[in-house]
Amino acid sequence: MAKQYASLRNIKFMLHEMFAVSELTKYPHFSHLDKESLGMILDAAVQLADTLLKPYYEEMDRNEPQFQNGEIKVHPHVKTIIRAMGEAGFTGSGLSLEAGGQQLPETIGSAIGFWFAAANNGVTTFSALTPGAANLIASFGTQEMKDLYIAKMLSGEWQGTMALTEPHAGSSLHYITSSAEPTEHGYYKIKGQKVYISAGNHDQVENSIHLMLAKIKGAPAGTKGISLFVVPQKRIEDGKLIDNDVRSIGIYHKMGQKATPATHLATGERDDCRGWLVGEPHKGLTYMFQMMNEARIGTGIAGASIASAAYYAALEYANERTQGQPLGQKGQDPNQPQTLIINHPDVKRMLLFQKAVVEGSLGLLMQCSNYADLVHVTEGEEKEKYELLLDFLTPVAKTYPTEFGQQAVSAGVQCFGGGGYCNDFPVAQMYRDIRITTIYEGTTGIQSLALLGRNIMLKNGKAAILYFQEVGKTINEAEKYDALKPYAKILQAEMGRLQKVTQYLVGFAMKGETELFLADATLYMEMFGIIAIAWQWLAQGIVAKQALLIGNLQGEDENFYESKLHTMKFFFHYEIPKTQGLATRLLDTEVLTVALEKEIFV
Amino acid sequence: MAKQYASLRNIKFMLHEMFAVSELTKYPHFSHLDKESLGMILDAAVQLADTLLKPYYEEMDRNEPQFQNGEIKVHPHVKTIIRAMGEAGFTGSGLSLEAGGQQLPETIGSAIGFWFAAANNGVTTFSALTPGAANLIASFGTQEMKDLYIAKMLSGEWQGTMALTEPHAGSSLHYITSSAEPTEHGYYKIKGQKVYISAGNHDQVENSIHLMLAKIKGAPAGTKGISLFVVPQKRIEDGKLIDNDVRSIGIYHKMGQKATPATHLATGERDDCRGWLVGEPHKGLTYMFQMMNEARIGTGIAGASIASAAYYAALEYANERTQGQPLGQKGQDPNQPQTLIINHPDVKRMLLFQKAVVEGSLGLLMQCSNYADLVHVTEGEEKEKYELLLDFLTPVAKTYPTEFGQQAVSAGVQCFGGGGYCNDFPVAQMYRDIRITTIYEGTTGIQSLALLGRNIMLKNGKAAILYFQEVGKTINEAEKYDALKPYAKILQAEMGRLQKVTQYLVGFAMKGETELFLADATLYMEMFGIIAIAWQWLAQGIVAKQALLIGNLQGEDENFYESKLHTMKFFFHYEIPKTQGLATRLLDTEVLTVALEKEIFV
Repeated sequence: MAKQYASLRNIKFMLHEMFAVSELTKYPHFSHLDKESLGMILDAAVQLADTLLKPYYEEMDRNEPQFQNGEIKVHPHVKTIIRAMGEAGFTGSGLSLEAGGQQLPETIGSAIGFWFAAANNGVTTFSALTPGAANLIASFGTQEMKDLYIAKMLSGEWQGTMALTEPHAGSSLHYITSSAEPTEHGYYKIKGQKVYISAGNHDQVENSIHLMLAKIKGAPAGTKGISLFVVPQKRIEDGKLIDNDVRSIGIYHKMGQKATPATHLATGERDDCRGWLVGEPHKGLTYMFQMMNEARIGTGIAGASIASAAYYAALEYANERTQGQPLGQKGQDPNQPQTLIINHPDVKRMLLFQKAVVEGSLGLLMQCSNYADLVHVTEGEEKEKYELLLDFLTPVAKTYPTEFGQQAVSAGVQCFGGGGYCNDFPVAQMYRDIRITTIYEGTTGIQSLALLGRNIMLKNGKAAILYFQEVGKTINEAEKYDALKPYAKILQAEMGRLQKVTQYLVGFAMKGETELFLADATLYMEMFGIIAIAWQWLAQGIVAKQALLIGNLQGEDENFYESKLHTMKFFFHYEIPKTQGLATRLLDTEVLTVALEKEIFV
Repeated sequence: MAKQYASLRNIKFMLHEMFAVSELTKYPHFSHLDKESLGMILDAAVQLADTLLKPYYEEMDRNEPQFQNGEIKVHPHVKTIIRAMGEAGFTGSGLSLEAGGQQLPETIGSAIGFWFAAANNGVTTFSALTPGAANLIASFGTQEMKDLYIAKMLSGEWQGTMALTEPHAGSSLHYITSSAEPTEHGYYKIKGQKVYISAGNHDQVENSIHLMLAKIKGAPAGTKGISLFVVPQKRIEDGKLIDNDVRSIGIYHKMGQKATPATHLATGERDDCRGWLVGEPHKGLTYMFQMMNEARIGTGIAGASIASAAYYAALEYANERTQGQPLGQKGQDPNQPQTLIINHPDVKRMLLFQKAVVEGSLGLLMQCSNYADLVHVTEGEEKEKYELLLDFLTPVAKTYPTEFGQQAVSAGVQCFGGGGYCNDFPVAQMYRDIRITTIYEGTTGIQSLALLGRNIMLKNGKAAILYFQEVGKTINEAEKYDALKPYAKILQAEMGRLQKVTQYLVGFAMKGETELFLADATLYMEMFGIIAIAWQWLAQGIVAKQALLIGNLQGEDENFYESKLHTMKFFFHYEIPKTQGLATRLLDTEVLTVALEKEIFV
């Protein structure tokens, strides 16, 4: 098992050098914190990860959840972990002080989430879902709900879940059929099945609190008739927990992330499932999007963090494993000893690719978290700007780290050769684990429709303009440094290319040709994502360059900044060229996936 | 479980329309066959796959081999399969009549291998390794060896293996240390450990015959001192099988292809392991390359076949599963029923990508098999030409189907959404299975060094010139058809781009700058592979166009040819643009992975 799974130096670079998290404590919203307390929180997270998460990463995979006698049994260590996370305040880190949370900046929360998932991504789902569910109650629930549920959830005694998907309604929630019938007692009678409910009804908590979408009888069709309910596995009556008719039907056997069960639940089979409406009727999907957007960033973080763990495992191996001789000497002198595989350019290329994906992705995710923080400390137009930027970039921050994260982990497997395919090394598990991340919380296809079909024209294009301005600022800053000028120019040209492609595609939208507009949205997302990561790399390059110019660095710090610049260059020279082919396809007039009359699949 | 896993119509298209396999029976080498007998062989293979292979695909994955009390236990159905394959003559299909084989054309052998692996790739390794090992004995062994081993191996009573890799010597066989000490009895005393030996010493055969590399005491260092031995698990003495000191130490737990164990073997621990030299001393690696080249084509076939099975599974699902509404109507009318997901352009794109990879890969693999067949029926310069073309293209035929096959299977998983990540559908297993194929038989990195570092300059560039001529012929042929002219032009331009990149890189070799020459060999391979598949698609397009022009087709056949042309177009419009970014990188003068002084990984 590899020792390192993430870089604390890089996390601190992100928090303090890139996004100046301590500055936030000047504002009232974060005034209960200071640099020192933030440092202590991070230290505590690292320790928890090292002692309670990482040592169980492989064991929890090899002993996956079981469905026995109607009960969902997970690894008993799950309880220890979620209780410890609750007690240390990590589960409630993002919730407001008023709701009983820590009201930490998102940037800190994301850094900690990244660290936890890098240590053991399979188990962090438990404690990542609970605060999302609790936060929905905190934001839209009644005081009674808040009093009943939030404290128990944040402590880790109760589990929170998102209960959206039904057997016939996944990507398209329009079509859910779970129903809610009003009663005169204030609650609704809930009926319906939910599938793929992560962490639902498991045996290491007393209770599961499902934040569930259902339709009130007589509600309008489609998304406008969806309401949000709190549906506890066990309801509270006279201080006791009573079975609430939320039956566990079974679990799905997943390829990876096996620590967390994906469950199949049936509500109201005995006509005794009670749910309590959250907020107003028919507004459930709007509310749920709060949780979903958080979960999308969280999924992006999972992608980046698994890629981080695989990168450090591969790096460690490449620095220990010898094989062959340096290229120039090959076959020339069989008496020479073998060289470390890290000396082979192909291995260096695979490692640099991984590093570029991991740190570039983390940059974009921290950028989004930073926007979320700025929403809390600004007002009026500025606040709206950060809200728009966060909304605009969320699908990209979900997609690039997961899609390219999968490629990065695959490169990690390849560094190990045959060993990478076996359980002897952790990368095989990481390869299985990360595959879900492009499906969870809206597939890549769905994110791509959100980016191109919704966000590009959000507020009449205002969000897109704000984004282009943000990138422009970074380009202007980079131009001040001779060493960065060529990269600023490349990014400028890429933004021009992106604009050209965008205008071409939006042209179809203007003409009402929606299919032509969106047919290749996934490729548009790929192109957009690569350029967004180039932006982040240029921003990191600026900070690294500044630090090197100021000088007076320890050897280790100097290496860190030099490595940043080197990886930035790698991204621009190896990754950015991929946009050429994408742009060519996106501007191509040959239509091959829309309105086909012939039977094209034989 | 999906019903279809491969297309018999497409196999017949390849065999008869693309590569005219029946024509081969005019030559003496294949005169024991005719079109009818070839058809019967194919039918028998399909039936065997349907009845004995496919029904066990998932079961064999869920019940992986166990190492118990020093014994390697595999699924008991393995015996049934390998005996049936032996009895039907499939195991010996490629061996000469003289050696007791069927002497079938490679094109037929590859088609059958593809079909078997599409049905159950995990188990076909058993019966794919045996003929490779038997063929080494047939080609280079003594008459005594042939008499002792081949019949038992081809019947499926005994297993054959390749025993190359050692714990410290995988990609670089220079450094193996297994030793062979001559005795006065004609045999050698063998000592050493071998790892990742697929199908070694398992319990569903009487005996395993290891074709093992070792160094005779006092041999020259490096590859020039490697010899090949037959090392049976049990040696034959007085007609009885006697333990030959080849101990099973354990098995590796793999991510996929679980039906076949990867074993760890120790020879000569009791100083009683006997091995018999195959051919001359110190020429073992040359001999082994016969088997390895066959195995490389075989691994390419495995990649294409797993991608085929995933494609048909995804296609079936896309034609059954409804979700959402067509793009143009989204959200407009929630009362409309859901549409089949195959109607979404993004799903069509993913399916076309899979189909393009599967059928393009199979084309290149069949092309290589066709060259192998032509070697048998030609002489002199013509024979040399086909030998060179086969040698030249083997690394590409191993790499493209496995690298892009992995992407194709991943697209297949994505078509299923959450279900694709679970055992409920077969694609999750296929995703795990195919991941080994870019590692087996020389990783992608090794294949890429073989292509750029060896093959491009093979016989002073003669092989490369022959390849360019072959592609040129296809381009000329395509130009006769108006509908194909644009694609002929694109391929011509791509070949020009490839030539430019090749010349640029070879320039470094001329200057002795080997690291700069080969640093990005893997990206060169990717570019080369995409263009080679475009060549195959254009060739398939020509045949399809001709058939449509002749006309008089059944509806089903017309669909088949139209689908070919559509997929060809898809490849040119969606895949070919990827070479732009690759060429840009390969021509880039910025060196980022060679001779780095700084510590670049922090």
